[in-house]
Amino acid sequence: MVILKEDERLDYLLAEKLRIIQSPTVFAFSLDAVLLARFVYVPIQKGNLIDLCSGNGVIPLFLSARTKGNITGVEIQDRLYDMAVRSIEYNKLEGRLKMIHGDIKEMPEQLGYGKFDVVTCNPPYFITPSKEEINPNKHLAIARHEILCTLEDAIKASSQLVRQGGKVAFVHRPGRLIDIITLMRQYRLEPKRIQFVYPKQGKEANILLVEAIKDGSPDLKILPPLIVYNEDDEYTPEIRGILYGE
Amino acid sequence: MVILKEDERLDYLLAEKLRIIQSPTVFAFSLDAVLLARFVYVPIQKGNLIDLCSGNGVIPLFLSARTKGNITGVEIQDRLYDMAVRSIEYNKLEGRLKMIHGDIKEMPEQLGYGKFDVVTCNPPYFITPSKEEINPNKHLAIARHEILCTLEDAIKASSQLVRQGGKVAFVHRPGRLIDIITLMRQYRLEPKRIQFVYPKQGKEANILLVEAIKDGSPDLKILPPLIVYNEDDEYTPEIRGILYGE
Repeated sequence: MVILKEDERLDYLLAEKLRIIQSPTVFAFSLDAVLLARFVYVPIQKGNLIDLCSGNGVIPLFLSARTKGNITGVEIQDRLYDMAVRSIEYNKLEGRLKMIHGDIKEMPEQLGYGKFDVVTCNPPYFITPSKEEINPNKHLAIARHEILCTLEDAIKASSQLVRQGGKVAFVHRPGRLIDIITLMRQYRLEPKRIQFVYPKQGKEANILLVEAIKDGSPDLKILPPLIVYNEDDEYTPEIRGILYGE
Repeated sequence: MVILKEDERLDYLLAEKLRIIQSPTVFAFSLDAVLLARFVYVPIQKGNLIDLCSGNGVIPLFLSARTKGNITGVEIQDRLYDMAVRSIEYNKLEGRLKMIHGDIKEMPEQLGYGKFDVVTCNPPYFITPSKEEINPNKHLAIARHEILCTLEDAIKASSQLVRQGGKVAFVHRPGRLIDIITLMRQYRLEPKRIQFVYPKQGKEANILLVEAIKDGSPDLKILPPLIVYNEDDEYTPEIRGILYGE
């Protein structure tokens, strides 16, 4: 049983293994989040994972299929936090998935420094625009723009939360690559694996996945390119595998 | 007529359009140099271009097929400089291709600050190893290792030589991406276009192409991936087009 509010839907995640509450006017997860949840290295049997800017909890839910560890999600928006909590309950994952309704900047103080093996984050992508340009829908504006959380806030909090040698993985737009790399190094996170995602063969990359290690040694790898659509605008086999677990 | 010394060969460049003197024991150009010469934006009708760490002049020669501007190559090794000069003469390009035998660090003083529209560089890739590990062939060691020219030397000289708004393009290993980006920004070169080259579908990138603009605004694009070999270990059509002008 699940109570759906307003225009919420109960969508499938990972084929029929999981379900997730979404709403087109409040928040619906993107391919980016799913790609991040698949990209990051996770400990399989145990460990403490935390997902920042969690939205409706898509990354914790997806990660729960990859690890038996404990996963914490942090979301500042009450409506989204509430959706995530109900999705976790619906999937009977409350034993090891926990949502926190709060500001990521306060999490190191609240949860402790260096307590997590893995931090993931799909932060707002866009620098806060002028009032005229901003999305009038407050939920979407906060999720998409750096209103309550800048890229530096997210990277700083990640670095404080992760243990030495632990992993921090972000998804973002390729245009921010230089900012991300520069900020990560500034906060002792050494980028080790980067993957670019291209919408189609012959097109520029539109998604950037990056994983860093706290106090790691410099040794960056650029993983094979990931192509989303084939020439007929259908998902490529690789993307189908990620989305549907095929 | 051309005089070939010792084990030198007169190889084809760009199918039969150009020829280039090479030697397996002194210097033979790599795919990397050809990819850089194809990657960089060049003014077509006129302009001043300079190639640093020019080796046997492969990049100036290749660029001569893409621009009618003047191209200067700088090479510190006498033997390689000499090969480049003879190749330029053989191709009858001495009217607009010029080689300088010297140290790139001295070129801004010698040639002037901000005088070039385009700077290209295929620098030595490897941080100088210990004496035991270094290539006993001095020519190859200098071309491959940061013995006479570090990455910072090359980026600094490029920034000094290029005019405001001019372009600086480098080829390097993906593992040095972070160093390159950081150094470029330090020397007022803003990376605008990056392309990764993958030896095969499904493999990690092994070549990085990057183009920056002096004092440019931040706006980075990741170009479509370039794959070198198909599943049968033959060059892909895209690489054949670049190498042979097909």
